Amino acid sequence: MQPNLYDRKKEPLLIVISGPSGVGKDTVVKRMRERGLPFHFVVTATSRPQRPHEIDGVDYIFVSQGEFDRMIEQDELLEHADVYGQQKGIPREQVREALESGLDVVMRLDVQGARTIRGLFEEALLIFLVTQDEEELIRRLKERETDTPEAVELRVDMVRQEMQTMEELFDYCVVNADSQLDVAVDTIMDIINAEHQRTKPRKVRL
Amino acid sequence: MQPNLYDRKKEPLLIVISGPSGVGKDTVVKRMRERGLPFHFVVTATSRPQRPHEIDGVDYIFVSQGEFDRMIEQDELLEHADVYGQQKGIPREQVREALESGLDVVMRLDVQGARTIRGLFEEALLIFLVTQDEEELIRRLKERETDTPEAVELRVDMVRQEMQTMEELFDYCVVNADSQLDVAVDTIMDIINAEHQRTKPRKVRL
Repeated sequence: MQPNLYDRKKEPLLIVISGPSGVGKDTVVKRMRERGLPFHFVVTATSRPQRPHEIDGVDYIFVSQGEFDRMIEQDELLEHADVYGQQKGIPREQVREALESGLDVVMRLDVQGARTIRGLFEEALLIFLVTQDEEELIRRLKERETDTPEAVELRVDMVRQEMQTMEELFDYCVVNADSQLDVAVDTIMDIINAEHQRTKPRKVRL
Repeated sequence: MQPNLYDRKKEPLLIVISGPSGVGKDTVVKRMRERGLPFHFVVTATSRPQRPHEIDGVDYIFVSQGEFDRMIEQDELLEHADVYGQQKGIPREQVREALESGLDVVMRLDVQGARTIRGLFEEALLIFLVTQDEEELIRRLKERETDTPEAVELRVDMVRQEMQTMEELFDYCVVNADSQLDVAVDTIMDIINAEHQRTKPRKVRL
C-alpha cells in the first residue's frame, strides 16, 4: 500500500486572480464567493475612504493612514501597493491562518501585486483575466464612472504593457467576456480542481 | 493589441489515460466517448483475437500477427507492447492526423505505454487513474473473469511497483472510485479545460 497515492493530503492553494483594470476581477471574485465554495477570500486592507455601499471587513478592511503605515513597518503585509494614490495591502496573518486550516486562499490583485506574490511564492497559482478583445476592455473602462478620459487612456497604455509580460508571469489565462461571467468562473473552478489532482502539488508555506 | 493574448490558437493536447490493470481505464474512456465531446479517441491496433462483443475499428483495429509485425518493422506504431502475451500498438498516422486537424487526442495505455509516450513527447498530458484504495483494486481484479487467482496476484504486485514511479511520470492523479465514474470523468474534463487555459500550452508535434 502506498499511502502517498491512496491517502493524499489536499494541499491548499494560494490563488491570485489578476488582470488589467476593467477586466472584472472584483466581479469574478464576487461570483466565486456567491457560489458558497470552501475558499478563504482575502480581505484587503486599505487606507482609502470607505464608499457608501462598502462593508468594513467584507469588501475591505478600512484602516487609517497611520495604521496602514504601522502595518507596513511591522511587516504585517504580504504585499502592498499604492495604486493611483490608494494604498492597499494583504494581511499576512490572515493568509497564513487560512492556509494552515487547509483552505484554498483566493486574492484579487493587480499585475504588480501578482508579480510580488510570485516573487515570494514560486508555487502560487496565478490566473490572468482578459476580455475578449481590446475594444471590450476600453468600453468597460469608459463605462466606469470613477475614471476620467485621461485615466482611461493611461490604463489602456498600462494594460498594453502588462500584456507583454503576462505569459511568463501567469500560469493560466482566462477570458472574462461580456455576459459570460459564469463561463469564466466555471473555468477558474476547473483550473482549481485540476490543480488539486496534480501529482506534484504546489506547496506554499508562509 | 497583443494577438498572442486576445487571439490565442487552441493547441491540441495529446492525452494519455493510464493506470493499473483493473482501475477502469476502458470504462473511463468509454464514458468520455459517450459524452460526445470533440476528441479523437485513438483506436489501438492489436494482433489478439476479436472477442464476440467487440467491433473492428471501434474497440480495436484487429490485424494478423504478420500485419502487426510489418507495422512495427515499418515504424508505423508510435508505441507498441506485448501485454500478457497480447500485442497492442498505437498507429502513428492516426494520431498525427487528429492533432493536425486540431483535435485533442485521447489514448488509454498501461503504465509502460505511458512511459514510452512521455519519452517521445515531453509535453504529452499524462493522467493516472487510481482506485479509492488497494482493497478496491484487488476486488475489481478478482471480479474480472479473464484472470486466474495467480494472474490477480501478479497484477497486484505489478501495481505496487507502478505506484512507486507514478509521481514523477504522470502530471495528474485522478481517483476512479466505485460508483463514482462520472466524478472521475468530470475531473478529467476539468483537467483538459484547465490545460487549454495555460499561458504556456503543451505543444506536441509528430
